[in-house]
Amino acid sequence: MWSETVKKELQGIMGEKWVKDDPESLVTHSYDGTPMLQSLPDAVIYPENTAQVSETLKVLSKHKVPVVSRGSGTNLCGGTVPVQGGVVMVMHRMNRILEVDLQNLTAIVQPGLNTKQFITHVEGLGLFYPPDPSSMSISTIGGNIAEGSGGLRGLKYGTTKDYVLGLEAVLANGEIIRTGGKLMKDVAGYDLTKLLVGSEGTLAVITEATLKLVPPPKYKKTMLAMFKDIYGAARTVSSIIENRIIPATLEFLDRPTIRVVDDFAKLGLPLDMEAILLIEQDGDEESVERDIARIEEICRSEQAERIQVAESEAEALKLLTARRSAFTALARLRPTTILEDATVPRSKIADMVLEINRIALKHNVTICTFGHAGDGNLHPTATTDARDEEEIHRVEAAFEDIFEAAIRLGGTITGEHGVGLVKAPFLEWKVGAAGIAVMQGIKQAFDPHQLLNPGKVFAKSSRKRVVIEHG
Amino acid sequence: MWSETVKKELQGIMGEKWVKDDPESLVTHSYDGTPMLQSLPDAVIYPENTAQVSETLKVLSKHKVPVVSRGSGTNLCGGTVPVQGGVVMVMHRMNRILEVDLQNLTAIVQPGLNTKQFITHVEGLGLFYPPDPSSMSISTIGGNIAEGSGGLRGLKYGTTKDYVLGLEAVLANGEIIRTGGKLMKDVAGYDLTKLLVGSEGTLAVITEATLKLVPPPKYKKTMLAMFKDIYGAARTVSSIIENRIIPATLEFLDRPTIRVVDDFAKLGLPLDMEAILLIEQDGDEESVERDIARIEEICRSEQAERIQVAESEAEALKLLTARRSAFTALARLRPTTILEDATVPRSKIADMVLEINRIALKHNVTICTFGHAGDGNLHPTATTDARDEEEIHRVEAAFEDIFEAAIRLGGTITGEHGVGLVKAPFLEWKVGAAGIAVMQGIKQAFDPHQLLNPGKVFAKSSRKRVVIEHG
Repeated sequence: MWSETVKKELQGIMGEKWVKDDPESLVTHSYDGTPMLQSLPDAVIYPENTAQVSETLKVLSKHKVPVVSRGSGTNLCGGTVPVQGGVVMVMHRMNRILEVDLQNLTAIVQPGLNTKQFITHVEGLGLFYPPDPSSMSISTIGGNIAEGSGGLRGLKYGTTKDYVLGLEAVLANGEIIRTGGKLMKDVAGYDLTKLLVGSEGTLAVITEATLKLVPPPKYKKTMLAMFKDIYGAARTVSSIIENRIIPATLEFLDRPTIRVVDDFAKLGLPLDMEAILLIEQDGDEESVERDIARIEEICRSEQAERIQVAESEAEALKLLTARRSAFTALARLRPTTILEDATVPRSKIADMVLEINRIALKHNVTICTFGHAGDGNLHPTATTDARDEEEIHRVEAAFEDIFEAAIRLGGTITGEHGVGLVKAPFLEWKVGAAGIAVMQGIKQAFDPHQLLNPGKVFAKSSRKRVVIEHG
Repeated sequence: MWSETVKKELQGIMGEKWVKDDPESLVTHSYDGTPMLQSLPDAVIYPENTAQVSETLKVLSKHKVPVVSRGSGTNLCGGTVPVQGGVVMVMHRMNRILEVDLQNLTAIVQPGLNTKQFITHVEGLGLFYPPDPSSMSISTIGGNIAEGSGGLRGLKYGTTKDYVLGLEAVLANGEIIRTGGKLMKDVAGYDLTKLLVGSEGTLAVITEATLKLVPPPKYKKTMLAMFKDIYGAARTVSSIIENRIIPATLEFLDRPTIRVVDDFAKLGLPLDMEAILLIEQDGDEESVERDIARIEEICRSEQAERIQVAESEAEALKLLTARRSAFTALARLRPTTILEDATVPRSKIADMVLEINRIALKHNVTICTFGHAGDGNLHPTATTDARDEEEIHRVEAAFEDIFEAAIRLGGTITGEHGVGLVKAPFLEWKVGAAGIAVMQGIKQAFDPHQLLNPGKVFAKSSRKRVVIEHG
């Protein structure tokens, strides 16, 4: 429990000014990027180094004070809301790039480092860090690791998980562990590195990461393909992959999203299309030109109404804007925007989009869908109003149906946003009761007193799944 | 404990002929690919499907009988030696390719499937499964998953872990879990998929795997570069990567290995070289030609004595033979061959090879080194005689020093072979006492009665590490 004693002990560790419990600090750390969730912490603290994190966790575990470690809180699953109070540990002071190793193509960074700043830094050294979550201008690497963040380049390059080679982390009891290293191969015991990635701050506090860098692509080309038939767009996605082409980016916007984006960004998009695909390929010039030409052919054979290949970097940027601004554009429509990330095998995206539309109609809610078509990771996004309790109830019912549909199509409840609070009641739908039991066993092994980000991932009770008969 | 009752129950599950306890069956399953380790099981069983595995584990857990699940037992860490007796569960009857999904570029396979057979099958469909452990003609996919196997193509394409998207596995209590799926992105809870890969049969019995396939490269080129200065070879490795080229294969043979390989395979290799690099690049023709030309330049600037670029597939195969036959060639020298896989950051390979040579000299043993230079994964290989106890003692002392040196250089005790029995006493050197404790907690969560492959990964006591002062 939080007390004056604990406060004094923490002040002793990191100095008075880094232990805050004024109302403004508490309120600003009571929520994150997720709408409609809020809970006040008892204090907000800012450790400067791993030793302080370790000492802090010793104090907190002695006094059984919950702790939520966080970066910028851009997550969309309520992952950093301190639902059981306690301490919010902000990692922003630990924001340094400790090393970029040009021989091993690795970087060692602290968790509070801004994602975009890191990407820009390594690009300046002629290297490439592919994970590009939409929140990257604000998010931190530590937050990306905690959530297992994806992004637009996930299809070809993988997600954050694929770039974490090693971690330093502090356990609930204050002990420091080091996993992996500057090693492309390491099978010494269980893979704690990959286990900690995506563990949402519930197993340990990440204090340092060794990341993999890759050579940057030399050339890039961007195009839009527009379809009157949503199945044509979906078949195009499958057909590109079946033709053994893995584009760097293969994104999808549905009709409602197209309208909103065009209204927002004035791109002159045709408003009578059912779907737009944004496609980008990178690599050596010859291969990119060949791939883009073949993709154009595929789009045409699937009856694309219009194909627009960017002739310049400026034009490419404009096309990318159509996709990158989707969330912002949608957020202007109504007071509350709820963005989800139900994911299905890529062969099922047309089915999933039609399910989403059917479900939106059934519950009389507005849901626009865009997302990473290439890896089946869709973002059905509800525009609503948190003050309208009855409508919010319908939105929640719709998302429940959407999760159910994703699972039924062989998918998952979250592709890149994490479980957090929001999807905890649905986790059992994906992993089963035995899966939950195993995960709880792992949680128990790391954090026996349930102090690290308590209330996340595991729900008090799982949502009962209503299996819909199709026949 | 094993008993006639248990035997009858197992016979009831899979039929009498699939529960064997004749001396021949027991002896042939008392060892694996690792020299000098043997322990008799009480029975050898052959389940046909997941339901039988589940029923079997229920019986075995009720009677507290240890169980070692295995494929072909090609591992080199004693990973499948039944050190505590009990049942050896051979997965060879579960050897089917259940599906290749051309839209999602995935395959679903059973664990007993032969690796090479799978690779050949998907190649026939115009697809590519990159993990290529040296044992692939004999090994099984399930064994590769259990050990987290690597191979020659690991540098560019990653290891088995990077290709496992989902698993079906049976827990110690007989419950069946399913993880992941045909999904490139899935962050629903802790990553049990990656945790089970490389868990060496100690957490669950894998009964099905969903694997990722990729488009095959269109073109390939192979070359050898020969060096009189080992540091020249090592600098070449670093320099290739620093020049933003990631070759498909970048292998290393040291002088003693070159002599033995040439004697074995009659390749006409120059015997006065300190090191040979085998380099292969694949991809689109233009990029491959450009990369190979640049690599040739780099080799020349690092004083390579001879460079040989294969002009035909037959010649490429001959060059590859130099590397692929290393183990076989070395195995002819003396009665016992002990192949290890200490791994260091790639920038440290020259230091590591010199450490190995120094250590071999110090202990008066013969150690030849070859391996995957590109990812720092070296295979120091001792040729010795298991019947000479005194020499074996010296070999073991040398390997202990080698593990110590690898850790000191920022490396690990095993890059792709696993911990098993052989490296269990050294695991703490890599992961620390806190790391071991966490791993044991995970083991406890999965397998509270320590029935799944007991005695592996965790040693009764860790080897005390003698820290060598360098100054």
